[in-house]
Amino acid sequence: MSKGITPRSEDYSRWYGDVIARAELADHSPVRGCMVIRPHGYAIWENMQRVLDGMFKETGHQNAYFPLFIPESFMKKEAEHVEGFAPECAVVTHGGGKLLEEPLYIRPTSETVIWDMYRKWIMSYRDLPILINQWANVVRWEMRTRLFLRTTEFLWQEGHTAHATEAEAEEEAHRMLAIYARFAEEYMASPVIQGVKTDSERFAGAVRTYCIEALMQDARALQAGTSHFLGQNFARAFDVTFQNAKGERDFVWATSWGVTTRLIGALIMIHSDDKGLVLPPRLAPIHAVLIPIWMKDEQVERMRGAAGALYERLVGANPHLRFKLDDRPEHKPGWKFAEWEQRGVPVRIELGPRDLEARQVVLVRRDTGAKETVSEDGLPERISVLMEDIQRDLFQKAREFRDAHSHRVDDYETFKKKLEAEGGFYFAHWDGTPETEAKVKEETKATIRVIPFDAPEESGRCMVTGRPSSRRVVWARAY
Amino acid sequence: MSKGITPRSEDYSRWYGDVIARAELADHSPVRGCMVIRPHGYAIWENMQRVLDGMFKETGHQNAYFPLFIPESFMKKEAEHVEGFAPECAVVTHGGGKLLEEPLYIRPTSETVIWDMYRKWIMSYRDLPILINQWANVVRWEMRTRLFLRTTEFLWQEGHTAHATEAEAEEEAHRMLAIYARFAEEYMASPVIQGVKTDSERFAGAVRTYCIEALMQDARALQAGTSHFLGQNFARAFDVTFQNAKGERDFVWATSWGVTTRLIGALIMIHSDDKGLVLPPRLAPIHAVLIPIWMKDEQVERMRGAAGALYERLVGANPHLRFKLDDRPEHKPGWKFAEWEQRGVPVRIELGPRDLEARQVVLVRRDTGAKETVSEDGLPERISVLMEDIQRDLFQKAREFRDAHSHRVDDYETFKKKLEAEGGFYFAHWDGTPETEAKVKEETKATIRVIPFDAPEESGRCMVTGRPSSRRVVWARAY
Repeated sequence: MSKGITPRSEDYSRWYGDVIARAELADHSPVRGCMVIRPHGYAIWENMQRVLDGMFKETGHQNAYFPLFIPESFMKKEAEHVEGFAPECAVVTHGGGKLLEEPLYIRPTSETVIWDMYRKWIMSYRDLPILINQWANVVRWEMRTRLFLRTTEFLWQEGHTAHATEAEAEEEAHRMLAIYARFAEEYMASPVIQGVKTDSERFAGAVRTYCIEALMQDARALQAGTSHFLGQNFARAFDVTFQNAKGERDFVWATSWGVTTRLIGALIMIHSDDKGLVLPPRLAPIHAVLIPIWMKDEQVERMRGAAGALYERLVGANPHLRFKLDDRPEHKPGWKFAEWEQRGVPVRIELGPRDLEARQVVLVRRDTGAKETVSEDGLPERISVLMEDIQRDLFQKAREFRDAHSHRVDDYETFKKKLEAEGGFYFAHWDGTPETEAKVKEETKATIRVIPFDAPEESGRCMVTGRPSSRRVVWARAY
Repeated sequence: MSKGITPRSEDYSRWYGDVIARAELADHSPVRGCMVIRPHGYAIWENMQRVLDGMFKETGHQNAYFPLFIPESFMKKEAEHVEGFAPECAVVTHGGGKLLEEPLYIRPTSETVIWDMYRKWIMSYRDLPILINQWANVVRWEMRTRLFLRTTEFLWQEGHTAHATEAEAEEEAHRMLAIYARFAEEYMASPVIQGVKTDSERFAGAVRTYCIEALMQDARALQAGTSHFLGQNFARAFDVTFQNAKGERDFVWATSWGVTTRLIGALIMIHSDDKGLVLPPRLAPIHAVLIPIWMKDEQVERMRGAAGALYERLVGANPHLRFKLDDRPEHKPGWKFAEWEQRGVPVRIELGPRDLEARQVVLVRRDTGAKETVSEDGLPERISVLMEDIQRDLFQKAREFRDAHSHRVDDYETFKKKLEAEGGFYFAHWDGTPETEAKVKEETKATIRVIPFDAPEESGRCMVTGRPSSRRVVWARAY
């Protein structure tokens, strides 16, 4: 057990808060429901942004920026949308010292303000597709907040695309979901289930919502990204038509898709342990920390000098990795070990007086604690290889955990008992009605997280009502 | 004269709007005072961000994120600050469908909400310095707005640093101003005057405001960046003390500094011409556009194929440059030339049937219109060199313009007459009183833009009151 971190087994929720506090990822602010993302947490977000932004641009998307404020009248144009979002909005009523004629909502999402602009920009099929993404802050009034996972203000990206045909928009919605899945698996080292939401979990204003779902270490699910096929709903609401190749006017087809800073919460909960944060190398702000060790005062200068020289060599040899040298004389090695463990640095490099003589170092993996002695000559390459090993092993471990907590169940009593005892994903038959969903949610707090794309056709009977069903859906309690 | 662009000589303000519209940099939104930054404009902002962010990180700064909302009580803690900013704030009074107990201001700048957190984070001198930057949106209610230059919501970065000594904070404020000046000159190709603001132009809450001032093509000044030495003002207001090395408690010293999306407005106004946008290569989203030319329909496929192959070679040979291939068959070459000129691409590469036979292309510079024929073999290197030439020449041209519009004046009548006739910077003596500043502003709309760091000691007499003065200050009408 690490100093200041409650073990997961004792109190998972306190553990989560302790990990964040000790790693200095974020802090509660005195502003209701809003968090402060501290530099170490923000550096993770920057890494996520860089990777995702690259993936968006490779697939032809461009970034743009739309207003923070949404006039009340815009919100009201799409009936489902206003019903879903207006109750959780922050509303500006005064500006420049005066009462506004029309209240302005702080964007909870930007479909309305963007589609109002698309009406100006789209005339003919030649103006399509429009493939725009925005990195921005949004506000959704939350009563119970939790750092990263649920805050009144959060950061996200929101893609908003416009297409000439239904098929193209559908293809785009799937393309972006696949990007999110790839990001989750290859960068966050988090296995996800891809699929579609039920109608009751659908985005307000969408025709279909696709999502990826991950499983946390407390066996609760977390929605890690959504991609919406919006049909022509927003085009109708904002009167956005175009002339197609045949010269006919039609409404424009749309998608929107987003991931948020809650991904940082997922990252923490998937990999971290009772010593603190564990990060997959591909998203870690620092890959390896080099700590010189001394026993006596007269060794300090020599060891600091040697560590400085080694640090320079490592930076030169591995320009794709981010190294940190911690040669602060005022702290003991053991104190530093704990600090960098808490901050999730994947590899620690220890350099002691005897290592120096033997031209070697000791490498310690953050995820497993495994130690190995490595000669200085082979060090840069060994560190590179270790990063790949750790990335792969974290994914493997998360997948094993997820698989061990995924169950096929066929009757409601077993489901309830097992869910209560061990959480996890439940693959079970459902009769397709919102009434059954609502009943299960009320009785167990579990919801249908996703209808998986790869669920095989299988005839069965709804675990609750016994009515026929043709495929299993995934139930879980979720964040 | 280009299609759809009003010449500068006819109406400078309309020219500015036309350049933005034709280059598709930004658009007016239906949301009061807010703009939409379109992809081509946002790509310029991304380039600015990348360069500045690199400079900030090289000097030890880290990014973080603080809440959008500022409780009213925070705003009121620093007397000058609230007086300066509260009247131009947007105020949230309702959230989650309810009237809030305390109104929340949308941040016009984040000193208050950040210093409230610094109180939690700073205990001793070991916690200092804190060197944090934030990329964010801010809101200042504006009655008369203009794209990029003055909008109710804008994007910016705001640095907020905390230091143990006055000297360190002063040094930081100067360091960041020097970074802004280097960015303006080396990347924006815009010469700037560095110096300090007078008290009446000082940031509300600062002890001293340092700034860089540039001159636009209509001979009006534009403040292109500010760096504030805040003394202990915010530490006192938010009770942020630390224990210094001697064990005494003292208030923490502070700076803040920022640049905004108005830099895009400056960039447009400094370099563009009557054909549209002109961009310095270092900030251009596209460096060179390749346009195949054909006279007859049967040439189309051959020329498109050849252009595609050349494009691939250029991308491979010059990975540090961004190329665009425009081989759209539905548009004529002349139409494309005008389009890419309007969008400010620094170099156009023309490939016609005879060029193809001769294994050559024609290069056309956007800034001068100069054409040259270059063999394919030497093309990648020639384009690289041209980028440097254009970058340097744009700076040179802007500096010559600025110097030609900088005047030393000693009497108020000459000042008024010349200012009215030709605008520009006026180096003149000032008696140091806010009354004289106010009188000149009222009578001429000119303000003291900056007291330059490099103004030599020179005894003289205030051009307005005849009272003694020891150095010249810079007057101008400004955006």
